[in-house]
Amino acid sequence: MERHILGAKQFDRSQLEELFAAAQGMEMVTRSGGSHLLNGKVMASLFFEPSTRTRFSFESAMTRLGGHVISTENASQFSSAIKGETLEDSIRVISSYADVIVIRHNEIGAASRAAKVSRVPILNAGDGAGEHPTQALLDLYTIQKELGGIDGISIAMVGDLTYGRTVHSLAYVLANFKDITIYFTAPENTPIPQQVKDYLTAKEVRFYENGNLPEVAAKVDVLYQTRVQKERFPTQAEYEKAAGRYIVNGQLLDRMKQSAIVMHPLPRAGEIVPEVDDDPRAAYFRQAENGVYVRMALLAQAVGVRPPQAGKRPDPNLLIV
Amino acid sequence: MERHILGAKQFDRSQLEELFAAAQGMEMVTRSGGSHLLNGKVMASLFFEPSTRTRFSFESAMTRLGGHVISTENASQFSSAIKGETLEDSIRVISSYADVIVIRHNEIGAASRAAKVSRVPILNAGDGAGEHPTQALLDLYTIQKELGGIDGISIAMVGDLTYGRTVHSLAYVLANFKDITIYFTAPENTPIPQQVKDYLTAKEVRFYENGNLPEVAAKVDVLYQTRVQKERFPTQAEYEKAAGRYIVNGQLLDRMKQSAIVMHPLPRAGEIVPEVDDDPRAAYFRQAENGVYVRMALLAQAVGVRPPQAGKRPDPNLLIV
Amino acid sequence: MERHILGAKQFDRSQLEELFAAAQGMEMVTRSGGSHLLNGKVMASLFFEPSTRTRFSFESAMTRLGGHVISTENASQFSSAIKGETLEDSIRVISSYADVIVIRHNEIGAASRAAKVSRVPILNAGDGAGEHPTQALLDLYTIQKELGGIDGISIAMVGDLTYGRTVHSLAYVLANFKDITIYFTAPENTPIPQQVKDYLTAKEVRFYENGNLPEVAAKVDVLYQTRVQKERFPTQAEYEKAAGRYIVNGQLLDRMKQSAIVMHPLPRAGEIVPEVDDDPRAAYFRQAENGVYVRMALLAQAVGVRPPQAGKRPDPNLLIV
Repeated sequence: MERHILGAKQFDRSQLEELFAAAQGMEMVTRSGGSHLLNGKVMASLFFEPSTRTRFSFESAMTRLGGHVISTENASQFSSAIKGETLEDSIRVISSYADVIVIRHNEIGAASRAAKVSRVPILNAGDGAGEHPTQALLDLYTIQKELGGIDGISIAMVGDLTYGRTVHSLAYVLANFKDITIYFTAPENTPIPQQVKDYLTAKEVRFYENGNLPEVAAKVDVLYQTRVQKERFPTQAEYEKAAGRYIVNGQLLDRMKQSAIVMHPLPRAGEIVPEVDDDPRAAYFRQAENGVYVRMALLAQAVGVRPPQAGKRPDPNLLIV
Repeated sequence: MERHILGAKQFDRSQLEELFAAAQGMEMVTRSGGSHLLNGKVMASLFFEPSTRTRFSFESAMTRLGGHVISTENASQFSSAIKGETLEDSIRVISSYADVIVIRHNEIGAASRAAKVSRVPILNAGDGAGEHPTQALLDLYTIQKELGGIDGISIAMVGDLTYGRTVHSLAYVLANFKDITIYFTAPENTPIPQQVKDYLTAKEVRFYENGNLPEVAAKVDVLYQTRVQKERFPTQAEYEKAAGRYIVNGQLLDRMKQSAIVMHPLPRAGEIVPEVDDDPRAAYFRQAENGVYVRMALLAQAVGVRPPQAGKRPDPNLLIV
Repeated sequence: MERHILGAKQFDRSQLEELFAAAQGMEMVTRSGGSHLLNGKVMASLFFEPSTRTRFSFESAMTRLGGHVISTENASQFSSAIKGETLEDSIRVISSYADVIVIRHNEIGAASRAAKVSRVPILNAGDGAGEHPTQALLDLYTIQKELGGIDGISIAMVGDLTYGRTVHSLAYVLANFKDITIYFTAPENTPIPQQVKDYLTAKEVRFYENGNLPEVAAKVDVLYQTRVQKERFPTQAEYEKAAGRYIVNGQLLDRMKQSAIVMHPLPRAGEIVPEVDDDPRAAYFRQAENGVYVRMALLAQAVGVRPPQAGKRPDPNLLIV
């Protein structure tokens, strides 16, 4: 596997399977009381814009492995206008302070620029409207865990599909599997971009654009709902057209298969009503939890430590007893 | 003991005694060089408003037990207007990242709302004008440690008693002990609220409202001074009437018993003059230190680990040597 | 060695040599995978103004030693106007939460004031236009490591020498060594202050003021370039006169000795052009890395733990294997 985690397209099927086996092992390790696999290792959380949720997930992963964290949500201070430092210089310095760097940046391509000069692995935790690969990995891991496998599934991606980078990345990683069917269910003004469709076509993934949510919901194994991100819309009018168009509620649930699941990258604003939470098919909080295990596996790989494999007993020396 | 720490009224006498024995054990452990009792465990500091002092005290407690911390003073970002997430959703997610959550919020009742949906224990580190139970616990522990016991003591609570939640909570926990006498010494415009008096009456605690500080100071075992919190007053005029009314200085100390102590939740603004600091009766910095031991004991209980008992030798396996 | 690290003048030669041996040991320990020398110990990062770079360097040092960190870049909240707490009270409290305090403050003398009341060692991480002693120590360590020794070297200090506290502190620590030659190369409006020259004269250090960078560069073993700090200048016009006057580029490198090195405290704004980075004489990123080892050694000394000595095998019990 590549040293840096920059985008969803860098993974092939065997790497994903290896990662998910490792994530499953991490889940086991966590339930057994933690690990000191990364004892003595330091992760730098370098957030150029605040995202407490993503930061917490990575930092929880690092600390559950016994590693330490140095952290800022104020990373723009490193390269402030007044001091004028480049991102490259900041990374050169920080990569002598830490064993792995998690970076969140407001500019597309920032993580790749960081990777070019870093002495340690870079994990992209979101670069503007670009990529957020670890979200796609935890989404995919959740599908596998909930449904028992990924080949052959059908999934609806619902909501703002133009600005929602989450669904783009998920589509890319899904393309590694066989016999996938994707339904894109979006308001007219926020369709799935042509480049995503071209990629799926090239990879021979079946997909449909169908704005009729009740119809689509009845067919799929996974309903992947997303938030309409107000901040991504040029005008209030455009936002309002998109928001509130697709709501997951009890009535919609009734149309879905009993074996299906509802996913959401969170936070939600109202596009899944609270009554859905109590249904066993509501998988979104389990999905958030899975993020920690997937990131534990990624961190362990990034710093060159072989994580325990699912199905094998973890090395007792790695467990805290 | 209840799993969550939400308010001062939830404790009975035997729980308090057990807690203080544990806190004493924690003090011993700390002096011996720390512990790894909570190794592999993660505490989330979720501060919706900054309070570096309280946050540091909890985080010091967690790390002295060998645990890790994920931390934010910017927690409102989780549920920001633009993203529109509920507190409940935030807690559901974070409770899959951590083994215990310390929450500070600007709204009364926030900690209880969090507890309703959390998978892990919630420790209330202050919810607006509501409760701040761990402050009351460390205050009470300080009284026991300094005076050798709590039954039979007399205490003056001095300053703004309307807006000072600290003294309300302290009154509630004191009501678990025998033969307590409380003097409420407040400016006319910030008296102790009726509901606190009603509670004490129901619990058969003796109390007096007496605005004459020199007279009261001569009688008590504990003089509990508080800051007049400017930000709690509707107008500057009201604030000025209350502030500066009661000052603890050398002259007042001269009237106090040799065995008495002066306490303060800190920070102070001028209501205890610096010359008092050198008097052995000045207990307020020792009180701040005690906060760490009490919070260590609470954290150990919260994550289900039995802390060492005072009077017994701590398990050498829990000590770092 | 003194318990607190407050200023560059507090060190004598033997203390510096002992520190550098310890720093070398720390480098060895780090490469071997870390240490748990400071396991169970807590460092408080108390930054009254943000400086993520310096904070990360200290926190990396503490965590690489197995210690824990409690951290704020918002320390002014402790002593905010509204709450009115003195720095002294803040330190009294925090020194009961931590085993060592790293303080950054905007006022000259803040670290010394903190040291007067602290129960634990204070490490000055910069107090306004005052001192930043650990920067001077890592600079000096870099010179020794890169050149094999400090006696007899010649160094050019280039840039804004009036407001740049870094060069003042470096001059002070250099004065402990024999046969040092310093060239001060500054714009006319930002010369080296008289008090620094007086100190060097008293210590019998040879120095010259020479604004001709190409001429000076050809002579020295160390070219210490600095950033012209816009924020230190009274007017834009003054700033512009100083900035851009001295640039290190390939042409200047060609005039330098093959054995010489280029240093910079970073961040740089443009006063060393990127083409220089690939030259082996560019030592500034190695210099940043050395900061971690020097701070590890200082932290180990501060909390009273004897660090491993270079040239000896580190105690295997201190290593994580």
